[in-house]
Amino acid sequence: MIKKFHGPDRRLVLGGLVVLPLLSVTWPTGGAQAQPAAADPLPSWNDCPAKAAIIDLVKTTTDPASPKFIPVEGRIATFDQDGTTWVEHPIYTQVVYCLDRVADVVKAKPELKGVEPFKTVLSGDRAAIAKLTLKDLEKIAVATLTGMDVETFQAQVATWIENAKDARWGRPYTELVYQPMLEAMFYLRDNGYKTYFVTGGGQDFVRVYAQRVYGIPREQVVGSALGVKFGHDAQGKAVLIKEPRLVLNDDKAGKPEGIHLEIGARPVIAFGNSVGDREMLDYTTSGAGARLGLLVLHDDPAREYAYGPARGLPDTKIGTFTPALDEEAAKRGWKVISMKQDWKRIFPFDP
Amino acid sequence: MIKKFHGPDRRLVLGGLVVLPLLSVTWPTGGAQAQPAAADPLPSWNDCPAKAAIIDLVKTTTDPASPKFIPVEGRIATFDQDGTTWVEHPIYTQVVYCLDRVADVVKAKPELKGVEPFKTVLSGDRAAIAKLTLKDLEKIAVATLTGMDVETFQAQVATWIENAKDARWGRPYTELVYQPMLEAMFYLRDNGYKTYFVTGGGQDFVRVYAQRVYGIPREQVVGSALGVKFGHDAQGKAVLIKEPRLVLNDDKAGKPEGIHLEIGARPVIAFGNSVGDREMLDYTTSGAGARLGLLVLHDDPAREYAYGPARGLPDTKIGTFTPALDEEAAKRGWKVISMKQDWKRIFPFDP
Repeated sequence: MIKKFHGPDRRLVLGGLVVLPLLSVTWPTGGAQAQPAAADPLPSWNDCPAKAAIIDLVKTTTDPASPKFIPVEGRIATFDQDGTTWVEHPIYTQVVYCLDRVADVVKAKPELKGVEPFKTVLSGDRAAIAKLTLKDLEKIAVATLTGMDVETFQAQVATWIENAKDARWGRPYTELVYQPMLEAMFYLRDNGYKTYFVTGGGQDFVRVYAQRVYGIPREQVVGSALGVKFGHDAQGKAVLIKEPRLVLNDDKAGKPEGIHLEIGARPVIAFGNSVGDREMLDYTTSGAGARLGLLVLHDDPAREYAYGPARGLPDTKIGTFTPALDEEAAKRGWKVISMKQDWKRIFPFDP
Repeated sequence: MIKKFHGPDRRLVLGGLVVLPLLSVTWPTGGAQAQPAAADPLPSWNDCPAKAAIIDLVKTTTDPASPKFIPVEGRIATFDQDGTTWVEHPIYTQVVYCLDRVADVVKAKPELKGVEPFKTVLSGDRAAIAKLTLKDLEKIAVATLTGMDVETFQAQVATWIENAKDARWGRPYTELVYQPMLEAMFYLRDNGYKTYFVTGGGQDFVRVYAQRVYGIPREQVVGSALGVKFGHDAQGKAVLIKEPRLVLNDDKAGKPEGIHLEIGARPVIAFGNSVGDREMLDYTTSGAGARLGLLVLHDDPAREYAYGPARGLPDTKIGTFTPALDEEAAKRGWKVISMKQDWKRIFPFDP
């Protein structure tokens, strides 16, 4: 869990690190509205094994007469973010953030203007940017995600996320969330579950917008985390400065380890979409009593994206869903959610 | 924040690490009961500056018409535990736990029976035990707090805390909680505050009983934390094994750093009792808007204990409250709570 900052994963390097939102998803965020008993709690889902399993889990764990009843304090639900509750293609949103921040960093430190990799990023040459090495990306991460106090960082992310837009849909990133997953979150919360993010992305970044976009309070965001250092600013005010030191690499085995560090209990239900979520699902469904693991399969190139390489889908290297993971899911009863077949709508703005 | 396991503080070595409860404090734990508007929300407190400041803070931050109003999601209250919400003398409860666990450890590993420091602990010779070195205590900590999976550890603490008793009062440790602080916690929660522990003690230990004793859910316990390692038991079940590797030293500057890691926001109000809490109060009261820091002064040897060395009280090395801390409190408006003068009752079982 504790690793050096150098890592082999682009998201870890850049994403392990920042975000905030003024978004305006059409779905009501926050409170726990009562569902009429007869209403479909997951209206954007077609009838499918995943939907049935979620509803069955909620019913059996919340009915006091059920042998699998779980008291409220044990009702823990965890969600991966990138590729599980919002779009992760063609590039992680946090990576876009870091690249976008370079201009401001160079404005503050003009001596970086002619220095690589900042020069390439400033050129706007997408082909050249796509070829940046991990070492380049690490320099960008350090420049854009560290050295400031945590509240300055939060304000920077808040400003960015309010204005930045995804190129394909021309909408704020915070609108590119999956309506069916929002419904699953609300349904779980309506039934006494606490919903958590457990993301490979940066927890400081996700905490900025999680409440507003997903109804998840910042303290329920577990993610990759850089260390902070306590100190004082020029006015003598106590501050925490973000440092280029990875405290939690919240991916693969780091997910259950991060869950223990920040939650302290084994989840009852966990949602993911890639090999980075495998250990979280393993940990969750190894628990006694009712448990459920689910994996989103991106098999809908028309409405979103298609990638695997499971089931012959293209291997895009981001959000990898391998044939081995698919086999393990089948063996262990983890439900694979086909975006194409199982979801009526993908986004809140879909008709 | 990230340090090697070797440390100069006895609590860090032993306490940085374990607990659970079936306690039966007479105060209702958990839910948010509505207070009749006219009732005194802090009935076990005499009129004093600390009480007035707590009530004033709650009123000004929860009245929507107040310029210092804080929305519910920003209402964060943090409490140190040892010496702030329960007794820490003559020895931290977690240290007692570790010493008590030695017998079981030796039962499982008989080869340790004749080996120091286990031999001395098994002898029951209090004078000899009191002379154990930090290196000895570290060996005891490693033997009693690591190597098992986290759920086994929780069960061990739960069993112990249900049965162990403090020598002076002949009561479970979980009854030696300060009634006025329970009232402060309930009052804050009744007004939309989330209450957190931020303890130098082990978060895995405190999480076992925090809900039952204080109404604080396990995920709202921030404390010193050992790392865990993801793996599988003999039956193939995914487990997390406790390791002798300190991930969070939640003391002094580690307190605000731990607050950022696990909560992600600057507290509005913070309670402590020693130099280990100074940075948490500094961080809290450096924030904009209404903020409050408070320190419990142990000046009541008849009803509890007396130690400082501030104000001429004896220096007992545990829960140190220095003259410098006392001066800083006066200068910065942190309220010092005199247990003798400000509290009508100390414990829930007091008449």
